[in-house]
This record gives sequence, C-alpha cells and structure tokens, in this order.
Amino acid sequence: MFESVREQTLAQRTVYTGRILNLRVDDVTLPSGKRAIREVVEHSPAVGILPVLDDGTVLLIRQHRYAVGEDMLEIPAGIVEGDEPFDEAARRELQEEVGYYPEHLREIGRIYNSPGFSTELMALFVATGLRPSKLQEDDDEYISVVPVARGEIPALLAGGTLRDAKTFAALSWWIAFGEGR
Amino acid sequence: MFESVREQTLAQRTVYTGRILNLRVDDVTLPSGKRAIREVVEHSPAVGILPVLDDGTVLLIRQHRYAVGEDMLEIPAGIVEGDEPFDEAARRELQEEVGYYPEHLREIGRIYNSPGFSTELMALFVATGLRPSKLQEDDDEYISVVPVARGEIPALLAGGTLRDAKTFAALSWWIAFGEGR
Repeated sequence: MFESVREQTLAQRTVYTGRILNLRVDDVTLPSGKRAIREVVEHSPAVGILPVLDDGTVLLIRQHRYAVGEDMLEIPAGIVEGDEPFDEAARRELQEEVGYYPEHLREIGRIYNSPGFSTELMALFVATGLRPSKLQEDDDEYISVVPVARGEIPALLAGGTLRDAKTFAALSWWIAFGEGR
Repeated sequence: MFESVREQTLAQRTVYTGRILNLRVDDVTLPSGKRAIREVVEHSPAVGILPVLDDGTVLLIRQHRYAVGEDMLEIPAGIVEGDEPFDEAARRELQEEVGYYPEHLREIGRIYNSPGFSTELMALFVATGLRPSKLQEDDDEYISVVPVARGEIPALLAGGTLRDAKTFAALSWWIAFGEGR
C-alpha cells in the first residue's frame, strides 16, 4: 500500500517572472528531515493535436525550435490562452498551424511533460473529420506542414528522426490504439 | 521544400543558476526583423526506462512530484550524471529505483520533453532480461514499485490515471511495437 510522501514547503520565492514561464525556488523539508530546494518552472498548460485526414494521413509540422537549436518534426501544439478550454485551444491551434477545423476531437491523454521540475500540463488530442479552415498564425511562427502516410509512421518512430516527446507519444498511441489500426 | 528559419541571438543572459536547471533569457531577432526574447531552461539530459519482466509485466514506480503536487505513476527515470553514457545512466537508475539489472537494454527514442523552452533531452529505453540487483536510492527519493500486467496497460492509458508524458509515450510505444504485441 503506497503512502504518499510529501515534502513540506518552508518558503517560496519567485526568482524570475517572464513571458511564457516563471521560475520559483522553494525551500522544503524532506521526509527524512533534511532540507533541500525545489526548482519549479511555472508554465501555462498546453495542447497537442494529432490531425488525421480521412485517408489516414497525419499532418505534422516542421519548425525550428530555438531552445534546442534544432528543426523539429512535431504535431501541432500551443499554449492554452487564459481560461480558454483545452478543446477550444486545440481547435484554434489546428486552424492556425495546419489550416483545418476538426469535426471530431478526442482527448487521448492529459500529461505533464517534465513533472520533475515543470508544471506544464499538456492535453493530447486526435483530430479527425478535418475541414479546411485557416486562422492567422502567430507572426513569430514559421512552420511548414508535413503530411505523413500512416504506413510511414513506424519507420519515422524507429529512425530516430522524431525528437519531440509529445509527437513520439501521440504517434505511438495512434499506432497502438487508433481507429486506423 | 522546407527552409529552416532561425532566430538570431543578440544577447544571452543567465538569470538563474541552480541545482537541476539554469534559466537563460536571450534577446533574439525574428526573421520578420521584429525583436523578441526567448526563455530557455537549461536542463541536463535524462533517461527513462520501461522495465519488462519475462512474463510481460512492466514495472512502474509511484512517487510524489513536488513541482506538480501529485502522486505520479511513472517509468523509472533520472538525470544523466556528468558525462555518464545514457545506457549506463539507464542501468543505474533501474537498479536504484526498481532493483533490477537489465541483460538487454534497447533505446527506442531520444526526445525533447518540452522543446519550446527546455533543453532537456530524454533517452527512452526498454529493459528486458531483468535480474535482481539493487543500488542505493538517492536519499531524497521515496518511491514504490507498481507491477502492471501487460493486459492492464490499455485501460491504464485510457483511464486518465497516467499523467506522466514519458510513461504515456513508453507504454504506447510498447503496445504498438513491443515484442509482447
């Protein structure tokens, strides 16, 4: 029987307040009685969407990611704005990044990307019944849409070219459980 | 044809240097010519390991995660120490957290958990041929091992109780591509 072992917060201080994240450093007492610090990146929730066309083709996007210095192949994703519901954020990002509106949106998971230090929670969706509908992208986004046939997904996952966690997760889930299985 | 669009770094300043992460704030010029800042969390690489017993049972761990304030069900994982090779880090964490040494260790992916703001790269492994071998845990880790039969994984993924991205990814991959399929 698991007993939750929590750390007691002694003090919290926000050392940085920024554009997409804040950094908090907490003093805590461990169950052992020892003291430690916990560094916590406060980040808004986000959504990631796997768009699947009627023929089973999935739509990925390619963009350069400054933080990691690489061009990444990813599912459309973005930060939830204010009190925007997750499903609305998913429909907005899908229209902004790939230019489709989904008739069907299925949430397949709600996961923390780095629970060791970040509060970022991501809702993962599969979008089907796609109808062309374009919303203006954020002006600091430079992305290209990359259609991937369903049969190419296993090689993409095995080849090491997929470097994005949410995309690795969504495509693996789709192969394991998707209707197209 | 995709042309990589990069942002030009004008200045970098490290606003926090810490225990498991640093925070850097860069001034950049966007391709549009507009200026912006990029917040980058510098984090060491990490490993995540899906341990699979000979009968197909996977071993997960449950622990409280301070940053997100939840008890999480996760695959064993940890930060790579110094210039430790990823596979050695995986063997070490596996022995520390679940008490097994893997005869076979297969890397299934190398992914960025949050490429929008974090440099954290995670190597994902599947560990088989498990032999009992316990290494002392870090003294600030309080975890319990949770065996999960292979047949229970789909319900676990569908039930929303799995809140950890690397675990969602590894289990989905295992169902999609694992030998036990």
